[in-house]
Amino acid sequence: MLNERKHKIAVVGCGNIGKSVVRSVLASKDLELAGIVRRPGSLRIPLPPEFAGIPIVSSIEDLECVETACLTVPTRCVPEYAEEILSLGINTVDSYDIHGELIRVKKRLNSIAKQMGKVAVISAGWDPGTDSVIRVLMEIMAPSGITFTDFGPGISMGHTTVVQAVPGVKDAIAMTFPKGSGLHRRIVYIVPEENADFSVIRKTVISDPYFCNDETVVIRTDNVEMLRDLGHGVIIGRKGTSGISCNQRFQYEMRIDNPALTGQVMVGAVRAGLRQAPGAYTLPELPLIDFLYGDRDSLLERLV
Amino acid sequence: MLNERKHKIAVVGCGNIGKSVVRSVLASKDLELAGIVRRPGSLRIPLPPEFAGIPIVSSIEDLECVETACLTVPTRCVPEYAEEILSLGINTVDSYDIHGELIRVKKRLNSIAKQMGKVAVISAGWDPGTDSVIRVLMEIMAPSGITFTDFGPGISMGHTTVVQAVPGVKDAIAMTFPKGSGLHRRIVYIVPEENADFSVIRKTVISDPYFCNDETVVIRTDNVEMLRDLGHGVIIGRKGTSGISCNQRFQYEMRIDNPALTGQVMVGAVRAGLRQAPGAYTLPELPLIDFLYGDRDSLLERLV
Repeated sequence: MLNERKHKIAVVGCGNIGKSVVRSVLASKDLELAGIVRRPGSLRIPLPPEFAGIPIVSSIEDLECVETACLTVPTRCVPEYAEEILSLGINTVDSYDIHGELIRVKKRLNSIAKQMGKVAVISAGWDPGTDSVIRVLMEIMAPSGITFTDFGPGISMGHTTVVQAVPGVKDAIAMTFPKGSGLHRRIVYIVPEENADFSVIRKTVISDPYFCNDETVVIRTDNVEMLRDLGHGVIIGRKGTSGISCNQRFQYEMRIDNPALTGQVMVGAVRAGLRQAPGAYTLPELPLIDFLYGDRDSLLERLV
Repeated sequence: MLNERKHKIAVVGCGNIGKSVVRSVLASKDLELAGIVRRPGSLRIPLPPEFAGIPIVSSIEDLECVETACLTVPTRCVPEYAEEILSLGINTVDSYDIHGELIRVKKRLNSIAKQMGKVAVISAGWDPGTDSVIRVLMEIMAPSGITFTDFGPGISMGHTTVVQAVPGVKDAIAMTFPKGSGLHRRIVYIVPEENADFSVIRKTVISDPYFCNDETVVIRTDNVEMLRDLGHGVIIGRKGTSGISCNQRFQYEMRIDNPALTGQVMVGAVRAGLRQAPGAYTLPELPLIDFLYGDRDSLLERLV
């Protein structure tokens, strides 16, 4: 494996997750960066000094020999980018996070991927993503019972992006707090633009599909800088029955740098994508060992 | 799926795990019992009343149309049984638990399985098994760092079986206690046979590969009945780095009826085995969604 050619990866978008993907690719032994694809409007925003030397382009077609593109654009733009890039004959990995839509997106990408002989790994973040794997695993172990997923406290990047795009919002941060039993409170801190009608902003946020199913508190503030912290976490618990034995108890908890984890999972998904038959896959549909770098037997010997 | 023919399963062996497999098969909608295979010497041992009506035979060849055999014989006998049953053209699932040997066993079974166009799922218990999946998942999320697996407190069925087979042992129970950081203490309670040399028994136990790597305390007692309790558990923790972000913290904990969980995981593995290309697989090599019963898209919609 050590003498194998490195696989060439493009990172599309260069926000928090894009930067994390770049760092995880730089830390990997089997992958290398073909380049970063940024929107022309973003090209002036400076990148971290350790990114010096990485080609920056405004179209993925300006990069050569890209095998996989990691899509770190806003989640709502993911399906369009993925379709376009798969059609160029390039594998895609994304961390698309709209739970209710992802099976539909998977079907769209599945047919293009098959047609092109390529692979799309979708929703390769932590939720959906690695948390989905945990939920499936817990249901394998105790098929009847109840699972709850309690997020936070932490800033939700997806929710924050949605709020920042609301007309009249100058800056914003959306935080998620666990209420227990799988219920959450969203607290949205908003710096409105001058002359903006805050009650309209509030209504727009509360009725957005990202927020309308949770208790949402919208708070007006003049500064969100002091709230910035990319730490996040989750507790997933299940109480269920295996066979006829009740009270089987499972709990998974993590406390993590949110974009760093997402970036790392996407990089694992790049590897897994290169090892599958053409099509679109979510994480529970993939053999997990395919996400790791290294000799298969040695990995299994150490981890099984 | 509801109208599909049920898959016929044989359970080989009928100890704690065998009984649990039977119960999990009875609770499943897509599997049915072809029968239970017991050694002629065990045929007199009564089975639970709810097992009435299940064919009991002394050879798997006495059962018809078996698609998968769940091997619940003592772990050291598993490779031989698996080879024999795969050679009959029947898928196998086992919970083989000798970590240092399982890749070798996998290779042996892999060639027979491929030759016969069948599938062997090996080490489909909780450790190795679902815990292996957790360890792989944690390493995907934070490729560098340290993982520890802390078992117990609980009776180790594998270790108990080993001790019960030591000459001069009338009855025994082997318990595992977590010392933290992945280290364990084994406490072995032994009722010796009259005239047995206890110091020889102690030496045999302590030098057995199952015990020689852990602190092992051997205690002589005249009754182990009061210690019987099939509850067990594990904590798996990882502290590691994703990209350049350190202090990523992951913890998984479960408290479970030990044989009930193993039986349930084996039943999931039966399903997964029926969905793979011929060969031998450990759990991290299989898509987890294949372990669940139900419409694929509905499962993904609910769990991803």
